[in-house]
Parts: sequence; structure tokens; C-alpha cells
Amino acid sequence: MPGPDISSYRDLDPVTRILMGPGPSDVPPRVLRAMAAPTLGHLDPDFLTIMSETQQLLRDVMQTENALTIPVSGTGSSGMEACFVNLVEPGDQVAVVVNGVFGTRMVDCAGRLGADIIQIDADWGRAVQPEAVEAALKGKQPKLFAVVHAETSTGVRQPLADIVKIVKDSGALMMLDCVTSLGGVEVKLDAWGIDAAFSGTQKCLSCPPGLAPLSFNEKAVAKLNARSSKVPSWYLDLTMVGDYWGSARKYHHTAPINMIYALRESLRIILEEGLEGRFARHQRNSEALIAGLETMGMKMLVPAEERLASLNTVLIPEGADDVATRKALLKQYGLEIGAGLGPLAGKMWRVGLQGHSSSERNVLLFLTALESVLSAQGVKVQPGGAAAAEAVFAKAR
Amino acid sequence: MPGPDISSYRDLDPVTRILMGPGPSDVPPRVLRAMAAPTLGHLDPDFLTIMSETQQLLRDVMQTENALTIPVSGTGSSGMEACFVNLVEPGDQVAVVVNGVFGTRMVDCAGRLGADIIQIDADWGRAVQPEAVEAALKGKQPKLFAVVHAETSTGVRQPLADIVKIVKDSGALMMLDCVTSLGGVEVKLDAWGIDAAFSGTQKCLSCPPGLAPLSFNEKAVAKLNARSSKVPSWYLDLTMVGDYWGSARKYHHTAPINMIYALRESLRIILEEGLEGRFARHQRNSEALIAGLETMGMKMLVPAEERLASLNTVLIPEGADDVATRKALLKQYGLEIGAGLGPLAGKMWRVGLQGHSSSERNVLLFLTALESVLSAQGVKVQPGGAAAAEAVFAKAR
Repeated sequence: MPGPDISSYRDLDPVTRILMGPGPSDVPPRVLRAMAAPTLGHLDPDFLTIMSETQQLLRDVMQTENALTIPVSGTGSSGMEACFVNLVEPGDQVAVVVNGVFGTRMVDCAGRLGADIIQIDADWGRAVQPEAVEAALKGKQPKLFAVVHAETSTGVRQPLADIVKIVKDSGALMMLDCVTSLGGVEVKLDAWGIDAAFSGTQKCLSCPPGLAPLSFNEKAVAKLNARSSKVPSWYLDLTMVGDYWGSARKYHHTAPINMIYALRESLRIILEEGLEGRFARHQRNSEALIAGLETMGMKMLVPAEERLASLNTVLIPEGADDVATRKALLKQYGLEIGAGLGPLAGKMWRVGLQGHSSSERNVLLFLTALESVLSAQGVKVQPGGAAAAEAVFAKAR
Repeated sequence: MPGPDISSYRDLDPVTRILMGPGPSDVPPRVLRAMAAPTLGHLDPDFLTIMSETQQLLRDVMQTENALTIPVSGTGSSGMEACFVNLVEPGDQVAVVVNGVFGTRMVDCAGRLGADIIQIDADWGRAVQPEAVEAALKGKQPKLFAVVHAETSTGVRQPLADIVKIVKDSGALMMLDCVTSLGGVEVKLDAWGIDAAFSGTQKCLSCPPGLAPLSFNEKAVAKLNARSSKVPSWYLDLTMVGDYWGSARKYHHTAPINMIYALRESLRIILEEGLEGRFARHQRNSEALIAGLETMGMKMLVPAEERLASLNTVLIPEGADDVATRKALLKQYGLEIGAGLGPLAGKMWRVGLQGHSSSERNVLLFLTALESVLSAQGVKVQPGGAAAAEAVFAKAR
């Protein structure tokens, strides 16, 4: 039985949104335009140049010199899986910090590969403390330690310096999920001593979802090359994928050509702005947003020193209807924000200020719209949220 | 050490090619334009509609009513891996036909998952015969049988009717790689009794690479649901991915939004043309190309009755320089064709006529260009190749 007549499918014309959820973020027109350039073959000499350029741009944004720095051909989570399938062998001890959905996901992923998991729990909405890591690793010799730098489910930014020291002492490789920090919040792979890291394109890089930047240093590559068993995934096997992205340029799978065009352009935009300036913009806009929310009488989930500028988690005020508020923001203002996940569902909202979406006008519009929507629900909100944000901007000008 | 100054990276402006290799094929401007529409959130009500439409269009093109019909978030090979990781448990007997690179790849992929492989070899450049399948399965009870419908490395189209009957009798699930056939050569999942199939977007669908259409029927879903172990891949676990694409619309990973826009448009174009008309166009253009090549004195690798209209494999004539010929076609005419792979490297060329690239003018240009390039090398070529192709077109008008 065939489906409806083909003429019933209208021309694609998605509504225009302002993406202030956990990602994807708004994509600059330059990136969309680059993505729509004619497709090249994956071994075309012109495309090989584009690959090399994209890799170098990625190294600059990830602040690393790692040769094995590539976009994995899948969305952010495929980067997580690529790290684990290449670095874990059955029976390996793998320590994972769990203080949100994405730590939980790493445990699930590594467990499927036969890892012997050391789970280090911390409160959702808080960073893990170095003492907890030290205690959990005491007397253990994990092969790999994995932690989320920017927990998209809670809005926590994990301080890393003390933890990296403990992990290095344990002999484990240090693996970092920087999906929601890369390009918006400082990430310095080499200076920080990160051995393996992955990210996604649709957060602070402001590129459509579809690729997962990944970087392995020489220690991680050595662990991969010393495996006694084949990488269990053919698609994500970096011994083969690396031959395509390395000097051999040997065909493995057809790369997502146009997505790589888009990534190259988004990285170019980031470096034109400059990393320091970009991080400062994310920080300033987050502070303005929070000043506004707190002026309105609302409370943030995360303590000030552990907050993630790219993803702001605010508790839902008493009397407010979670779903109705998000629906009204979407319908009346085209504004998308994120719901709480897991144990935080119904308790908070996640307001993304990522990449192109992190702008003064988005902060002001959101605060104004939220005040209006909550007031219409009869929720008691203090006035002056947008003005408080504007004061933060004025001070910085 | 930072890379070169950002101003040294030029605006993206890829050279214009005519893609007549094994894929990607040329992408119609309509598809590129749809892909560049503003990015929506992966749970936006507007995007959920686009998802449903894309799934129904995909069912129509795959000629199936399977509920679990989705684009996997990776390139074609991720579709292969998704089939195997979901359908294979360690120790399962899996029969795989190997008569080219992509059969070999399936053995590699299934082997990594602990499958007990029954490898059924056939000559590269020939289809496997039903008798060989029958003999190989005799007394065995494989859980899964996998075969390539359209071998991109050899240009063989595998006849399936007799084989499906044998496989059904064995009790195995029937899995089909239709990467290079879907949308260009007849593929009827339901009528043919295929239990699981995967494809890629960058071949006869003429959409950029980045997604892998996949379809499981109820028997395949039942096998998945009856697993005694978790699917070893988190990213490709269809029990969870299926919850996002199914009625629950439950978040699993962020879908590659803009790639899905592109796929929807490419499927719409296919159904506007009509499947029968599209298959006839692919067949006619292939026949014209072959008439031209044979008139020039060249020989095809594959016997007429097993040829794949979307990928034409021609033996390199005596005295011709493989690499120099492909380079000259690319440099002088912007024409990309494919090299031979594995044991066929240096022995043949692969000329794709897939989707948007399958056109009369591409056939005529290629024959004319090839005659010129070979003649310049001093290779003896009979004249009249393009005229012979034109005669095929004229007859069909």
C-alpha cells in the first residue's frame, strides 16, 4: 500500500526558531551556505585539501596538536562511542563519573563493551570533587577515566586540574566529553593533559548536528594500537578511519562531505572571532541571563562557581506549568528552551546560550518573553529581569 | 603551536565536478537548498512532522510497509553496522556472500561481533548462484543471511528470488545491502521477502552522504527484541533509536536535522519522477554507455544479465594508463570516475550513473572525453562511441 500522493508533501519550509535549548543551536547563514556547496567525491584532490584544513581548524579550536583529530561521521554520541570502542577492551577497568544523563550514558556505552566499571557518583547539579575521585581510584588501576566537562543535563562545568593529576597518578588515560563546552567555554586539550576527547557540532560550534569532533593524543593511539582484540565496531574503528584522515587517505567509508563543508565554515567563524573573545561573550551573556532570572526571583540549579556559561539551568518557579510555559515560548515567540531530564524533569528548564545563539538580543527577548508567559499563568514574578541583564551588557560595553 | 592564520583559509568554493564514480553522485540543487534551511530542534513539533514524512517517503521508495524504517545517523556503512549489531549475538551463525569489497566488509563487521561466519564465496564480477547458497547452508541453521544486492566494487546486480527461497527454508533472516541500488534499480523489500535492509543516501538517492536508510520487518524486530544480551553499540541500538523514530519520540541522540531535510527532498524528487520511470532511465543510460564503450572496442567486466545499471565496470584497454586516464578526465573535463578496488585495482574503471548523475548528457560527455584521453595516450580506440550511445537514446525517444 503506497503512502499519500507525492503532491501532498509540501516544499520544505521549517518555521523560524530561536534555538535556546540544549542544542542544536542556531546556525549562522554562512555555515548553511557553505554546507549547500556542490558535493565533491570523498577522494577528490580538492576535498582532500578541505579535509586537511578542517582538521587543522579543529586542532586550533580544541587547542591541541594531536595528529589524530577528526570529525567522526555521526552526531555527538558517536564520538563518545568512538572513544570507548577504540580504547576499551573487555575486562578493562574503566572509571566513569556520573552526575547527569551523559555520565550515565557513558556507563551504559562502556558496559556494553565489557568494561569493568568503577562508577563515581556525584549529585546531579554539582561537579565531582577531587577527593571523591581519589577515594574511588585508591588501590585500583583503571585503564581509562571518563568524565563530562559540560553536563548538558544539569548545566555543570567540571573543574579538571586536580582531577587530571589524580587520574595521571592512577595510570589511566583521561577521556573528556566536551560536547557542550567546545567553542563556547575554554577547552585546552594539550595544556590540560587530556588523552582523548569528543564533542558535537550542534552546540557551541553552531554547525548542524551530524559530526563528532574527536581527538586522541599519542598515548591514546598507543593504547589503540596495542589492543589484543579488533575494535568491535567496523564503522568507528580508528585504525581504519585514521588511515582515511591520515596521510594515506585510504578509503574506509564515504565521508559526510557537505557536513564537513559546514564544520569547516563554523570553525573558521570561531577563529575569526577568536577563542578568548568567544569565551568572554558566552560568559557575559550567561551572567546577564542569570542576573535577569535572579532579579525576577528565580533560582539557578548550580552554584556560581560550577556553572556552565553555555547551558543555564534554572529552577521552575512555584506555580509555573513546565510544559505550558515551554509551549507558549515556542508558539508565541518561536523560542525553544529545554526541559529537565531524568530526576530533574519538571523541576527546571535548560536555557542554552551556545555559539550563534549566545547573543544579547536572545537574552533580552527570552527574559521579556518568560516574564510575560509566567505572569499570564498567574505566577508571581518580580519585574526588571531584562533591565538587569541590560545593565550587565552596558557595563561591559 | 597554533595553525596558520585564519585569514589564510579561503572561502569554501569547491570546483564543479560531474560525479560519475561509485558515489557520491551529483546532488540536485533542490536538495542542497532544502539542506540549507534553518536548523530546527530535534523535538520541535515541526521537525517531528518532517520526520514522519521522511519515514513514509522512505517506505514508498523502499517499497515496504515496515514501521521500523528510518535513516540511521551515519553514512551507508553505519547502516550495515546497525543491521549486524542489532541482529547478531555472539556465537550466532551468520552466512555472508562474498563476491566483492562489500561482502568482505560484512564478514569483517559481523566477525567483530562474535558471529560464527559461514562465508559463501563467488567470483568477483559475478553473482552468486542459488546452488552455491543451497550447498553452503545444507545442514546449517544460520540465524542471518547477508548478501549485497548491488556490489559497488564490481558492478554486479545479484538476482534474489531463488536465493530468498533457500534462505527462508533455512530459517535465517534475509538481510540485504542495497546501497547502490535503492532509488536507481528495482528494490522491493516486502514483495521480495527481505527482513532487514540498509542503504546510503549518496548513490541513486542523490542526496549528500551522511545517512543510511534502514528497514526492519516484524521478524527482524522480533529477533532484536528477543536478544539475551544488550546491543553492543549504544549509538546504533535500535531498541532506543526506534523509540525516537517511533510514536514515543523519545530523545536518544540528536538527529542530523539538516541531512534529514536533504533526504526528504531527494525522496520527494524520486517519487515525483516515479520509481518505474526512474529505473527505466537508469537502465537506458547504462545500455547507452555500454553500447558506446563496446563500439569503442572495450569490454565490460560483468555478463549482461548480471549488470548493475547504476554502476558500470569496464576493463581498462591494453596500453591505457589507469591513473593518468582518471586524472585527465578529472582535470580536463571535471569528470570523476572510480578506480578498481582490491584484486580489480588497475584492471577496470567504475562508471557510476546514479540518480541525478544518470543522464544522457553525462553519458555522451564521458564517452567523448574518454575517447579523446585514450587517443592522446596512443591507445587504439574505435571511433563512434558517443554516436552509438546517441542511437540508443534516439530509439527510446
